[in-house]
Amino acid sequence: MGDVLFERLCIIGPGLIGGSIARMARARGDVARHIVTTAKSQASRDRVRELGFADTVAETLAEAVQGADCVVLCVPVGVYAKVMEEIGPHLAPGCILTDAGSTKSSVVRDVRPHLGPGVRFVPAHPMAGTEHSGPDAGFPELFQGRYCIITPLEDTDPGALGKVRAMWERAGSMIETMDPATHDKVVAMVSHLPHLIAFTICSTADDLAEETREAVLKFAASGFRDFTRIAASDIDMWRDIFLNNREALLEMLARFSEDAHALGRAVRYGQAEFIEDRLARGRKIRRGLIERKQA
Amino acid sequence: MGDVLFERLCIIGPGLIGGSIARMARARGDVARHIVTTAKSQASRDRVRELGFADTVAETLAEAVQGADCVVLCVPVGVYAKVMEEIGPHLAPGCILTDAGSTKSSVVRDVRPHLGPGVRFVPAHPMAGTEHSGPDAGFPELFQGRYCIITPLEDTDPGALGKVRAMWERAGSMIETMDPATHDKVVAMVSHLPHLIAFTICSTADDLAEETREAVLKFAASGFRDFTRIAASDIDMWRDIFLNNREALLEMLARFSEDAHALGRAVRYGQAEFIEDRLARGRKIRRGLIERKQA
Repeated sequence: MGDVLFERLCIIGPGLIGGSIARMARARGDVARHIVTTAKSQASRDRVRELGFADTVAETLAEAVQGADCVVLCVPVGVYAKVMEEIGPHLAPGCILTDAGSTKSSVVRDVRPHLGPGVRFVPAHPMAGTEHSGPDAGFPELFQGRYCIITPLEDTDPGALGKVRAMWERAGSMIETMDPATHDKVVAMVSHLPHLIAFTICSTADDLAEETREAVLKFAASGFRDFTRIAASDIDMWRDIFLNNREALLEMLARFSEDAHALGRAVRYGQAEFIEDRLARGRKIRRGLIERKQA
Repeated sequence: MGDVLFERLCIIGPGLIGGSIARMARARGDVARHIVTTAKSQASRDRVRELGFADTVAETLAEAVQGADCVVLCVPVGVYAKVMEEIGPHLAPGCILTDAGSTKSSVVRDVRPHLGPGVRFVPAHPMAGTEHSGPDAGFPELFQGRYCIITPLEDTDPGALGKVRAMWERAGSMIETMDPATHDKVVAMVSHLPHLIAFTICSTADDLAEETREAVLKFAASGFRDFTRIAASDIDMWRDIFLNNREALLEMLARFSEDAHALGRAVRYGQAEFIEDRLARGRKIRRGLIERKQA
């Protein structure tokens, strides 16, 4: 066991991600001596007290960050600006501020104006999750074997970067660093676009005439089902992701949409060779994943 | 064990589906006394002889169907017309002709003109599969707990229908009957559109600049991976499905495409409520599957 990383670790938003960080820190003992958290709703704060995965459940944001040497934002990215407005003045100089948001350019945009002197900001994105949400959803192993992407800025303090990296390594994650814009494009393709498609195909099915919809649910096992699994995720989180990774997501949607229409057109005009080429690319990408043991 | 259903069961195309039917019939003993098969390539015929899941491996289609009281077409739907042209004249009066094709209107269109007098045609579609193909891919349990949709025609013989139904029941399937057009719409939505989307998103990823594509493969676990799984399926089979369920597939693609663009537009203009509504529908459909134990 290495040195304890933080004296007072504050987790804003004890949902799936925040609750898993707290539980992981608790289970290891070498991440923080004291874990503080706070949630917007009284019900969530009460539930965290019952579950007992934090040492202190603060009633307000200001109280929660008081004296913390590390604060982790684990709220939907759409409320970062509002949360920062409240906590900015209360962050101690030297405090490390990091986050777990799925978009990074918008996070930098919303956080930076509220950083007081000496606050060390390290944007991060643990690429882990389940379709569940809320204080009950977390578990200490959530981040094991998953990537955590850190997107340091030009002025990010190396000492702070090292500590955030160490926290995620102790959580069991593999660390990658890249710039925020590259991060946003990559996640738009690997995660945000697939989620947009999954949500869409569900609503397309939901609009079908009653009889056909019932049959779709009945025979879902043939492929449709695989798409719905990721469409069960948290609504607030995904609305905010879509709205805060707009440019990259719309670019990837446009590319996908062109490709889908090209394939549709080939179906309409019976262009067998074009179709075969597209199907072969699907297999090639799949094979690439298998070779990388990501399948 | 009930009465043996068929004296001589002929399976045209001993791949994933045909090979699984043969293995299932072998394992049970009450489906057929004698199992005949044939494949287009010498290599496949040799491989089936090595694997030994058929009693006879015929060299030609005509020889294969000779004296069979049940023939099951398990080839890509695009070659049905050609296969029927060859076997039509050799089917014995009273013979039951059935199939395992994923489209049904095109199958009826391609098979009916070649039916000799007394041949009893029962179109069927076992909704089971894996991403593997070829003589080695099959296994006797493939159809257990899966639906088999039978699409009888107005003039389908009830006795023949009963025997085909019994074969699939013995394979462990749940039987549904519907008309070919309804079948084609339902599978377009539950299976063909999801496959078209999965193949497309893979080719979209494949077109990305080298660096981004590598990152996509690396971080695929966040949703993209779930789409690639179904994109590994057999190319000939899927080309033929797309081309032979054109109308229904293009209709479902158009609906999906409108919905994806509507969601993209809401992202562009920051319409949070519209986005939330779509996300909520995704969860609703997913919940519907869980309630039906189809998740």
